[in-house]
Amino acid sequence: MYSHSIEKILKRKKIEPGDQIRVFKGKNVYTGTLMPKTETSDANSIILKLSTGYNIGIGMKFKIEKTGGKAAQGKLLSQEIEFDPKKPTISILHTGGTIAARVDYRTGGVVSAFSPEDLLTMFPELKEIANTRTRLVKQIFSEEMNPAHYQIIAKEIAREIKSGVDGIIIGHGTDTLHYTSAMLSFMLQDLPIPVILVGAQRSSDRGSSDAAMNLVCAAKFIAKTDFSGVGVCMHATPSDEACWILHGCKVRKMHTSKRDAFQPVGATPVAKVGYLNDEIEFYQDYKRRDKKRQLVLKDSIEPKVALIKSHPGINPKLIEILTQEKYRGLLLEGTGLGHTPANEIDEFTAQNKRFFDNIRRFIHAGGVAAMASQTIYGRVNMNVYSTGRDLLSIGVVPCEDMTPETAFVKLMWACGQSTDVKRVKELMETNIAGEISERREE
Amino acid sequence: MYSHSIEKILKRKKIEPGDQIRVFKGKNVYTGTLMPKTETSDANSIILKLSTGYNIGIGMKFKIEKTGGKAAQGKLLSQEIEFDPKKPTISILHTGGTIAARVDYRTGGVVSAFSPEDLLTMFPELKEIANTRTRLVKQIFSEEMNPAHYQIIAKEIAREIKSGVDGIIIGHGTDTLHYTSAMLSFMLQDLPIPVILVGAQRSSDRGSSDAAMNLVCAAKFIAKTDFSGVGVCMHATPSDEACWILHGCKVRKMHTSKRDAFQPVGATPVAKVGYLNDEIEFYQDYKRRDKKRQLVLKDSIEPKVALIKSHPGINPKLIEILTQEKYRGLLLEGTGLGHTPANEIDEFTAQNKRFFDNIRRFIHAGGVAAMASQTIYGRVNMNVYSTGRDLLSIGVVPCEDMTPETAFVKLMWACGQSTDVKRVKELMETNIAGEISERREE
Repeated sequence: MYSHSIEKILKRKKIEPGDQIRVFKGKNVYTGTLMPKTETSDANSIILKLSTGYNIGIGMKFKIEKTGGKAAQGKLLSQEIEFDPKKPTISILHTGGTIAARVDYRTGGVVSAFSPEDLLTMFPELKEIANTRTRLVKQIFSEEMNPAHYQIIAKEIAREIKSGVDGIIIGHGTDTLHYTSAMLSFMLQDLPIPVILVGAQRSSDRGSSDAAMNLVCAAKFIAKTDFSGVGVCMHATPSDEACWILHGCKVRKMHTSKRDAFQPVGATPVAKVGYLNDEIEFYQDYKRRDKKRQLVLKDSIEPKVALIKSHPGINPKLIEILTQEKYRGLLLEGTGLGHTPANEIDEFTAQNKRFFDNIRRFIHAGGVAAMASQTIYGRVNMNVYSTGRDLLSIGVVPCEDMTPETAFVKLMWACGQSTDVKRVKELMETNIAGEISERREE
Repeated sequence: MYSHSIEKILKRKKIEPGDQIRVFKGKNVYTGTLMPKTETSDANSIILKLSTGYNIGIGMKFKIEKTGGKAAQGKLLSQEIEFDPKKPTISILHTGGTIAARVDYRTGGVVSAFSPEDLLTMFPELKEIANTRTRLVKQIFSEEMNPAHYQIIAKEIAREIKSGVDGIIIGHGTDTLHYTSAMLSFMLQDLPIPVILVGAQRSSDRGSSDAAMNLVCAAKFIAKTDFSGVGVCMHATPSDEACWILHGCKVRKMHTSKRDAFQPVGATPVAKVGYLNDEIEFYQDYKRRDKKRQLVLKDSIEPKVALIKSHPGINPKLIEILTQEKYRGLLLEGTGLGHTPANEIDEFTAQNKRFFDNIRRFIHAGGVAAMASQTIYGRVNMNVYSTGRDLLSIGVVPCEDMTPETAFVKLMWACGQSTDVKRVKELMETNIAGEISERREE
């Protein structure tokens, strides 16, 4: 059942699920089939199945009228929009995730399932900002993203840049969006234009969906500024006022469900983009756009890189197996300033005795081990305590103030750039894409 | 070299490193040997070696006078303080870490190295708040804490409670302090008195050390309230105004170096304790102290429990090895609402195909797999996406809004409480110590 106030309207207008209806909401008019409320949908939003087969949630308040009975077919009242040479052209590359997801009324779960064309039908505001074209690169949940996908996306971006677009939006699942934004920051050097990753924490058929606002703010940011580089555009606060543009290497998903889950880590946001107004405020300097600048595509990466999070009683075999599997990189997500258990004997299992030894063996076998902290915020400093100094003496590379996720994808990328351990370590210690902030006195 | 202003004073008073000096700072008077500035120490604090062998940093401004040449021995001007029957008695159990650390002038690093008695000599304010007694339980860095240590600490606490003290302070390294506070919350049920964990982010011989304030606030909180249960007492903000008392299961070290690194996660703080004033404000209800209540010590734990953080391209062998090693618990630190890669084929290695299969095999072999999120904040919800639903159908237990660290130690504890998988899963789903918050509508 919908909420009491919606049910009252439906009863008065003699509208039942399955009927053809027309809904007026703000400037938009939608027609389609009224769907029953599902277990997971918002009781204050009606669900409308559009002629595209896509479901949209329309929150109170709206006007509604019945246009036909259960047999008729709904059709969206959309206008063809011509190419406008005065507007910039944005390419939307779609890779999957909630931004293009809907509720599957069979299972009740959310599934990724609509074509990139639907995005424009869904979000007509985009056409007022820019000429857009969309292309489906992959249709996967972001938890399935893997090293090969990063290369596919990077190559697609390079192709779009060659075609002369003014900016690129990547639609991406939120689970690993920050891993991808970091990886693209390393792969796409000297970017002539902006590449903005956009996700949605709530699917478009929920009244509280953030899909439209995140997409529109990304498009505005591309259309109205001269920024170039990799950024993430997501809700800045729980309200619908503004989105952050976040640095691709200095961002992390910090909440399972909130719309403002993506927050800056170890840096200010790059900019704030108003949704209801056109205000754009920058908090960082940035490289200006220059369509003549040549992209340097450095997309070689090494998939045999692991992230191991240290914890009390950790089994050193987790490191041993990586040495056996001939892994080239090991990102240790240590505790505090960058520590792991050493050689202390666990009275239960005697296993930690070998943790340092196994890191040493991993390095002796030709691997590169690097350290970030599970505190998420702050800089590792392995010179303060003897544990850190011992790890340094074994050869573990400190990752400064990189998040564990950025450090992990950077190690994957650095091992792909060179087979020389010394060079890989050098790359890890060098600020490549803004991932290492300058040290400041506390 | 010390700062210009300190060097000027030393020159005027003809004091050189190695000389015996007396320093007046606020209400305190210290005597000892002037030490040279080290590479890592604050240039605006002089370092004084006390007769206990312990070094203290004294920041500007202070008064200083020379009491003897290089041969004499310094001695702290401390007064013997008698037992005061009007004051509560607090037992300070020391387990190691920065709160009892000093700079090793040989290596320049910080080492844990002084006796618990020194704590009282160092922090004379403690004696004004309560009768204190101290005991050394362990002298280890907290990154070395392992399952056996949790049992040792729990047993020591039980012993102290039997002896009739009014409250217990645990001095603990900060790296894994939140793992220990969560574990003690599960082990020590029906606690009659408060057990407050205290650490320090900066050692006591630095001008900016937080050791004294955290200790004093913990003692005040014990002396001036009727709270019982496990809490963490650390700086609430970067300033010296107040400490948080944080719930043992709802706290996490969120910064590598800041003094206010410990912050509440998924809950309000329990209380705020003023340092310069005596204000104590509660934000949560709590169980009242009752020295007649009988502690229920549930300290059986299972060390064969692992935490695996999911990441793009993760190697399923990390799960396989745990099955081979007959692990009983697997805490998956998934992405977003509680996801891991499933069966998508990695074009490089084809390895993720087996990730779900390996989780299934781990469970079939008698293990319990549970899911928390690497977003840190927010509740897992494995009903929203098909990936989550698939993991639920395999038998993975969702850990609601527990932090990955709390979920991990709880799984260790739950596997120790029962060998029956059904019972372990039940315990994981039951709120035992406030680790699961009630669901609220968003």
